[in-house]
Amino acid sequence: TRTGVPEVVLAQNKTVEQLVGIAQQCIERKHRVFMTRVSPDKAAAMAGLIPQHIQFHAESGTVYIGEIPIGVDLIDVGDPNSEPDTDAVSVVPRTRIAIVAAGTSDVPVVAEIEQTLLYLGERSTRYVDVGVAGLWRLCDLADELSSYPLLIAVAGMEGALFSVLAGLVPSPVIAVPVSVGYGVGEGGHVALNSALSSCVPGIAVVNIDNGFGAAALAVKMLGSAR
Amino acid sequence: TRTGVPEVVLAQNKTVEQLVGIAQQCIERKHRVFMTRVSPDKAAAMAGLIPQHIQFHAESGTVYIGEIPIGVDLIDVGDPNSEPDTDAVSVVPRTRIAIVAAGTSDVPVVAEIEQTLLYLGERSTRYVDVGVAGLWRLCDLADELSSYPLLIAVAGMEGALFSVLAGLVPSPVIAVPVSVGYGVGEGGHVALNSALSSCVPGIAVVNIDNGFGAAALAVKMLGSAR
Amino acid sequence: TRTGVPEVVLAQNKTVEQLVGIAQQCIERKHRVFMTRVSPDKAAAMAGLIPQHIQFHAESGTVYIGEIPIGVDLIDVGDPNSEPDTDAVSVVPRTRIAIVAAGTSDVPVVAEIEQTLLYLGERSTRYVDVGVAGLWRLCDLADELSSYPLLIAVAGMEGALFSVLAGLVPSPVIAVPVSVGYGVGEGGHVALNSALSSCVPGIAVVNIDNGFGAAALAVKMLGSAR
Amino acid sequence: TRTGVPEVVLAQNKTVEQLVGIAQQCIERKHRVFMTRVSPDKAAAMAGLIPQHIQFHAESGTVYIGEIPIGVDLIDVGDPNSEPDTDAVSVVPRTRIAIVAAGTSDVPVVAEIEQTLLYLGERSTRYVDVGVAGLWRLCDLADELSSYPLLIAVAGMEGALFSVLAGLVPSPVIAVPVSVGYGVGEGGHVALNSALSSCVPGIAVVNIDNGFGAAALAVKMLGSAR
Amino acid sequence: TRTGVPEVVLAQNKTVEQLVGIAQQCIERKHRVFMTRVSPDKAAAMAGLIPQHIQFHAESGTVYIGEIPIGVDLIDVGDPNSEPDTDAVSVVPRTRIAIVAAGTSDVPVVAEIEQTLLYLGERSTRYVDVGVAGLWRLCDLADELSSYPLLIAVAGMEGALFSVLAGLVPSPVIAVPVSVGYGVGEGGHVALNSALSSCVPGIAVVNIDNGFGAAALAVKMLGSAR
Amino acid sequence: TRTGVPEVVLAQNKTVEQLVGIAQQCIERKHRVFMTRVSPDKAAAMAGLIPQHIQFHAESGTVYIGEIPIGVDLIDVGDPNSEPDTDAVSVVPRTRIAIVAAGTSDVPVVAEIEQTLLYLGERSTRYVDVGVAGLWRLCDLADELSSYPLLIAVAGMEGALFSVLAGLVPSPVIAVPVSVGYGVGEGGHVALNSALSSCVPGIAVVNIDNGFGAAALAVKMLGSAR
Amino acid sequence: TRTGVPEVVLAQNKTVEQLVGIAQQCIERKHRVFMTRVSPDKAAAMAGLIPQHIQFHAESGTVYIGEIPIGVDLIDVGDPNSEPDTDAVSVVPRTRIAIVAAGTSDVPVVAEIEQTLLYLGERSTRYVDVGVAGLWRLCDLADELSSYPLLIAVAGMEGALFSVLAGLVPSPVIAVPVSVGYGVGEGGHVALNSALSSCVPGIAVVNIDNGFGAAALAVKMLGSAR
Amino acid sequence: TRTGVPEVVLAQNKTVEQLVGIAQQCIERKHRVFMTRVSPDKAAAMAGLIPQHIQFHAESGTVYIGEIPIGVDLIDVGDPNSEPDTDAVSVVPRTRIAIVAAGTSDVPVVAEIEQTLLYLGERSTRYVDVGVAGLWRLCDLADELSSYPLLIAVAGMEGALFSVLAGLVPSPVIAVPVSVGYGVGEGGHVALNSALSSCVPGIAVVNIDNGFGAAALAVKMLGSAR
Ligand SMILES: Nc1ncnc2c1ncn2[C@@H]1O[C@H](COP(=O)(O)O)[C@@H](O)[C@H]1O
Ligand SMILES: Nc1ncnc2c1ncn2[C@@H]1O[C@H](COP(=O)(O)O)[C@@H](O)[C@H]1O
Ligand SMILES: Nc1ncnc2c1ncn2[C@@H]1O[C@H](COP(=O)(O)O)[C@@H](O)[C@H]1O
Ligand SMILES: Nc1ncnc2c1ncn2[C@@H]1O[C@H](COP(=O)(O)O)[C@@H](O)[C@H]1O
Ligand SMILES: [Mg+2]
Ligand SMILES: [Mg+2]
Ligand SMILES: [Mg+2]
Ligand SMILES: [Mg+2]
Ligand SMILES: [Mg+2]
Ligand SMILES: [Mg+2]
Ligand SMILES: [Mg+2]
Ligand SMILES: [Mg+2]
Repeated sequence: TRTGVPEVVLAQNKTVEQLVGIAQQCIERKHRVFMTRVSPDKAAAMAGLIPQHIQFHAESGTVYIGEIPIGVDLIDVGDPNSEPDTDAVSVVPRTRIAIVAAGTSDVPVVAEIEQTLLYLGERSTRYVDVGVAGLWRLCDLADELSSYPLLIAVAGMEGALFSVLAGLVPSPVIAVPVSVGYGVGEGGHVALNSALSSCVPGIAVVNIDNGFGAAALAVKMLGSAR
Repeated sequence: TRTGVPEVVLAQNKTVEQLVGIAQQCIERKHRVFMTRVSPDKAAAMAGLIPQHIQFHAESGTVYIGEIPIGVDLIDVGDPNSEPDTDAVSVVPRTRIAIVAAGTSDVPVVAEIEQTLLYLGERSTRYVDVGVAGLWRLCDLADELSSYPLLIAVAGMEGALFSVLAGLVPSPVIAVPVSVGYGVGEGGHVALNSALSSCVPGIAVVNIDNGFGAAALAVKMLGSAR
Repeated sequence: TRTGVPEVVLAQNKTVEQLVGIAQQCIERKHRVFMTRVSPDKAAAMAGLIPQHIQFHAESGTVYIGEIPIGVDLIDVGDPNSEPDTDAVSVVPRTRIAIVAAGTSDVPVVAEIEQTLLYLGERSTRYVDVGVAGLWRLCDLADELSSYPLLIAVAGMEGALFSVLAGLVPSPVIAVPVSVGYGVGEGGHVALNSALSSCVPGIAVVNIDNGFGAAALAVKMLGSAR
Repeated sequence: TRTGVPEVVLAQNKTVEQLVGIAQQCIERKHRVFMTRVSPDKAAAMAGLIPQHIQFHAESGTVYIGEIPIGVDLIDVGDPNSEPDTDAVSVVPRTRIAIVAAGTSDVPVVAEIEQTLLYLGERSTRYVDVGVAGLWRLCDLADELSSYPLLIAVAGMEGALFSVLAGLVPSPVIAVPVSVGYGVGEGGHVALNSALSSCVPGIAVVNIDNGFGAAALAVKMLGSAR
Repeated sequence: TRTGVPEVVLAQNKTVEQLVGIAQQCIERKHRVFMTRVSPDKAAAMAGLIPQHIQFHAESGTVYIGEIPIGVDLIDVGDPNSEPDTDAVSVVPRTRIAIVAAGTSDVPVVAEIEQTLLYLGERSTRYVDVGVAGLWRLCDLADELSSYPLLIAVAGMEGALFSVLAGLVPSPVIAVPVSVGYGVGEGGHVALNSALSSCVPGIAVVNIDNGFGAAALAVKMLGSAR
Repeated sequence: TRTGVPEVVLAQNKTVEQLVGIAQQCIERKHRVFMTRVSPDKAAAMAGLIPQHIQFHAESGTVYIGEIPIGVDLIDVGDPNSEPDTDAVSVVPRTRIAIVAAGTSDVPVVAEIEQTLLYLGERSTRYVDVGVAGLWRLCDLADELSSYPLLIAVAGMEGALFSVLAGLVPSPVIAVPVSVGYGVGEGGHVALNSALSSCVPGIAVVNIDNGFGAAALAVKMLGSAR
Repeated sequence: TRTGVPEVVLAQNKTVEQLVGIAQQCIERKHRVFMTRVSPDKAAAMAGLIPQHIQFHAESGTVYIGEIPIGVDLIDVGDPNSEPDTDAVSVVPRTRIAIVAAGTSDVPVVAEIEQTLLYLGERSTRYVDVGVAGLWRLCDLADELSSYPLLIAVAGMEGALFSVLAGLVPSPVIAVPVSVGYGVGEGGHVALNSALSSCVPGIAVVNIDNGFGAAALAVKMLGSAR
Repeated sequence: TRTGVPEVVLAQNKTVEQLVGIAQQCIERKHRVFMTRVSPDKAAAMAGLIPQHIQFHAESGTVYIGEIPIGVDLIDVGDPNSEPDTDAVSVVPRTRIAIVAAGTSDVPVVAEIEQTLLYLGERSTRYVDVGVAGLWRLCDLADELSSYPLLIAVAGMEGALFSVLAGLVPSPVIAVPVSVGYGVGEGGHVALNSALSSCVPGIAVVNIDNGFGAAALAVKMLGSAR
């Protein structure tokens, strides 16, 4: 297409019939297709109808049709309240994108970013459980994270991670607010607004839970100095 | 009074006539009185009517009637984007309350806290321009700030300071969101909601711009282990 | 940890697999761990996988791993519309924290506060069904409640209890708004905003339904006059 | 008119020309007319054009054309933080409506209620500065206030007065939220929502700052047991 | 009680155990009790535990314990789009309260009002499906409705009924907004705000879906000219 | 242009310099131009720079450059609380569009509609002060209003006029909510939402205060049965 | 009826009993009736009680009683990211209304519009998957779409389709925002507000998901040049 | 600094005294400094105190201290409703950043972006008045705009420009919502939410009116493929 991003289908508000219809069209045309926000139920129903061509990735809620993407590096930085595990952080980055998430609850969105990046041809490195509650861990990672040309921060609740991370690294940070939280934090709006009104420059914001959008933007940004 | 906090008058929605009436009642009864949110215009008009008894503190917008409070320590921690000034931070705290503010724009609220604390008999130490954009400065202050039994954090915009500060010190932190910001940050609601939905424990939140309330709560908290 | 509050896990947005993983890490390291917002279903699933080490407290929705906390005092102050039961109120407080709740619907949040306090080493006394609809009951308790160095008020609907209680006692009051209510009161936002905009000084506000946060703040406040 | 309430003009969004036009029509037809939310400037401009017929009441921002209403009883219940003045409260009510206001800032709305009631032929008694911060004062007034067939409560900020007052008296209470407050309390929405979500029965709510509406409803309610 | 309204229990956020506990206390003390917002499931569970004493009224979702209230008059005013049925409207009102509802969807709230009124000793007359879409029907009822000393209007969506009805009758109108609607009308907030900002005087507003509150206010209002 | 509506300039956020620049371009090209939301100050400043070509219409805040539009019919339907003036309403409509406004405060928006319609080549008839508070007047006009192929309703506050008018006439009604109101009605949002959630079919809604948009839509609608 | 739109029943908040009651009344009077927002469950339950007379249209969630409407033209404009299929777009419009929908998720609302139009006697042509992401497709359709006297645009998410379509055609566009979206887009409010604040003239807005309302307005508009 | 963006001061909530203090510190240290959101009044007051060193740029409301930046290219693409001026669009881009603005009202934000970019060492090209109301103009620019590695879109009202532009070019688009609009569009929130919920991938969102943030992000993005 004109914008350079191949077809991605948002499955959330579509029926199984509609999704199967789209899939079959792609299979006929020998196009590959990628679907996000697919529930396990919908995936199972689809697989019953077009079993040979479909692959469901449960952690991210995504479906690939006509293609098997390669795996993703996972660097578990451990428990945010314990002392930083310096062995883990000495790893030289082997990808161009670091995904930094505040907590375990953010993993589904992290996974959607990773799978979309793979679909778009880009690998990434995952840093989970690096919230501001364990600030020292994040500070210890500052040099390693500074070596990436692009970072994607994923956080719910109050979203302080966005400002703190952007203040530690020279590269741009894509902020993905997550709908994790309750009370005033319900729905992810506080995290979103924290990202938008951050007094630290260099933050590119996308919609709440929009892992797909963050990945597509990342791929465009990596190409933007042509 | 029953709750132990002496009379404080919120001048914002009162006319000069009403304020002078309250003041004269107190002067007759030989009570002292303290007024918050007094505009320079109102203070001047009041002073014209009861000049001997009135004192206006411009930075905080407060008025004392019948009493002259003592001054406040100011430790200017400098420019948030420059290297930390380690000389300044080696000062041993001489008060029980540290007031930590993200930026220069928060000074009026900081001043309202200081003056109210003085009226209630408590001195404090001011740390201004210590926002998360200059995270190293804040980290360098961590040990000094940890020596206070109580901290008051003052911040507008996205309010990341509340979470970061509370993660650095063992004492409770009173969060005072400030109505500094624009766009989604207008009115201080993002800072407030960040404080409330912080994933770092130990934050006591008060209303936006409520310097008076933070000071009154602080005095009660310092007495709460009786 | 640096802040003095041991690890507490918010289970709400985590899968059973993630929770069991965290639990097993703690069991291996011989750490105890405490989880909040655990549904009965998740607790049962976890117990099936790590049965010897797990304890579910249903009323509060909390789970302890590796430790059995001691019980909590319950003083039932009776029916809010009947005459005050003066026998009940003559009890001398034996703890440092009174938890005052407006109604029966607030009990789950009260229980989360109690269990978290126990995990953090602090006992408390429960006063339930003391809303402003039965104001005399609350007034009759004023002297007893005034003897506590710290109070935690729990209320939904319009949250008038926060202002009324703070006007009756000299100690600070932690306000925990509860998501009980309907129409404009839905989600607990009116109770929250009432606590924040109260004209009575001495109220420390936490997020809606944040029993954990109130307990952690309480423990910090009791230590804050060091 | 069909509904029994004579013409009242809301001057707020009308030009001086429009208001003078309405006034002259009424003078020609020998009708009396009452205008609310008239600024001093508009009143002065109108008086320059139709001086013989116009009367401006500054405290309430109202204008009468063609009629001079009789005065209103003012019972000053004093300073909310001092001990209750029992002499003042022993007065036998001489009107059918008590207007109970939390603070001095609510006086403009109280005055609009009083003047509208007078225009509609009803006198009232004013109890100002009776907020929940000084709960004992309010409790001491409980018997006196219980003798009125109808009460109008006026309060801004968190509006706890509505619930507390309605829990003390057998008669219905009209709640008039006031746009006094700041931060989350700005605009009077918290006071409004507190009145609506009160768990105390017997509260009739009107719009924020709607003194006119409260007075008109009061007159209808006093006639409602025909 | 002091306020003259007997105990009513809001069952919505209470467990079956809590409700049965309250019920048994009342049965022991030979008090009657009335519960609102009881789901059929909860009612069935309660009935299994205290079968002799309990009565569930399904349309209104209410439960009586220890008392059987008498029935309610129902005047079906027919299809809102057809010609007015003049026979039906000539009936002389036999109660002091008319309940006027815009549509069939409002019936559960109407029923909660009726049952609460019966519990409080007052009968009422029901006019359903009298929305502004069929304005002539409402106009034809104007004289009949004008003969009631009190009206309760029940409407969701845009709530135009409140203004129209209040403009047709001399008595006060209690407005009960209903959470029927979708899009901007979801949750009943538009109906509520229409009632509050109506330019027709004489409307007393209660919370969305608060049939109980409307009934309790009505009973107080009918007694308010003592 | 492609859409058939000639250039209209929204002056609100433009400087005098920008407006004069646009005007001079049009004068050079011998185009006419129409500007809305022009303050008297801006109009005067513009007139000082391009006096021969400019015409300011104060009631509507509009400016014409290069053209003098013809006048508008005004049918004053009188005082909403008096008896309907049947002489006035017997006039046969001489235009294709009736503009029906609830009150005098809506006149500026009515005038913007009229002037825009004239600029677009369409005359209209004005019915002001026909709110639902004086329902009989509106009902008496029903037949006259039903003879127009298109109506534009203009109302602030609760916007009940939209539903009532649409229920009286067979033609479509364009609803223009007006930012007249206070408390919950402030900014015109209640009127807007009432129009959108009306249960009466046939209402086309435009933005608050968008008189220009209503006029442009009206002209397109009158041409829509080609 | 007076307004010319026959009875349509909103089934969403009605019980099966209420719906069957309404249906039987219509069958007895030999009226046809149309119901919107009927769930499959409710339709099945109704069909069990009045099987001969009922017809459920699943895609739109509508029910006809007493009438069988004729089918609707479907022009599938294909995949928005592929090249425009010029064969498809050369079809001469055979109806007076084009329904243009951004995506597959909008189909249920499109279907409600089509069925309501059929009930009201009007056929329409469907253009689905014509969002702004594939702008060229929309531009290629510009001439075809310009030949319709009336268009209905259906879109969720950010609703850019409304502005873009209205800028391409001379006829009025009815905008139907759809509650498809997540994060800030949840509930359809962004699409609604985009339609209302569009800077392109000629857009008539209805409530979110209000397919019925769009259809009824369309029929009135097609008759509005009488 | 660590993040690579030199000091920029947000003047909006600072006093002249505070700004002069910051400026003098920089002059002493021979640092240059850049200030945004400086009103003409504040700039004049500052210039009176430090005249040799200060430069005020009125269109953007920015101040430079100690440095004179070079000018910006301006390509006026003309009147959005006239035919596209093909001569203008054949210009070969000479910068790496295109700033595309919907209308004249967006110019102050465009200017803030330009001046900040210059301060950060980057030139840009301005395309003003290219809104979706004149879609053809935008389409004609598609090839030229596609040649930039980075675009910044600036728009208020409904913000349809963000989606349309992102669908036309392969590079990433930074969306800057502008607080231009009224009614539901007031404050720029609709434009912001349209950018966030766009269904077109590749949009990086910053806060409303945040020209500074867009420029800082742009500079980081241009460096992000290192
Ligand atoms: N700046 C302030 N913000 C909030 N509350 C205040 C402030 N200053 C004073 N107050 C409180 O508000 C009450 C003042 O109410 P009033 O009777 O209207 O003067 C006092 O009792 C104080 O507790
Ligand atoms: N009920 C609760 N409400 C709010 N915060 C909680 C709660 N329970 C635990 N927490 C905090 O949230 C953090 C949990 O984050 P995590 O388990 O890493 O996702 C812990 O560090 C606790 O401080
Ligand atoms: N449906 C209802 N809506 C609002 N308040 C109610 C309702 N039913 C009962 N109440 C009130 O809420 C209080 C019940 O509180 P609780 O002690 O939680 O049962 C009673 O005192 C009633 O005044
Ligand atoms: N899907 C719908 N959305 C909005 N209004 C509807 C819908 N279907 C029917 N209506 C209208 O709502 C009214 C139904 O009200 P009711 O009397 O509750 O059936 C009818 O007169 C219709 O004008
Ligand atoms: Mg964690
Ligand atoms: Mg700073
Ligand atoms: Mg209770
Ligand atoms: Mg007071
Ligand atoms: Mg109906
Ligand atoms: Mg009027
Ligand atoms: Mg699509
Ligand atoms: Mg333009």
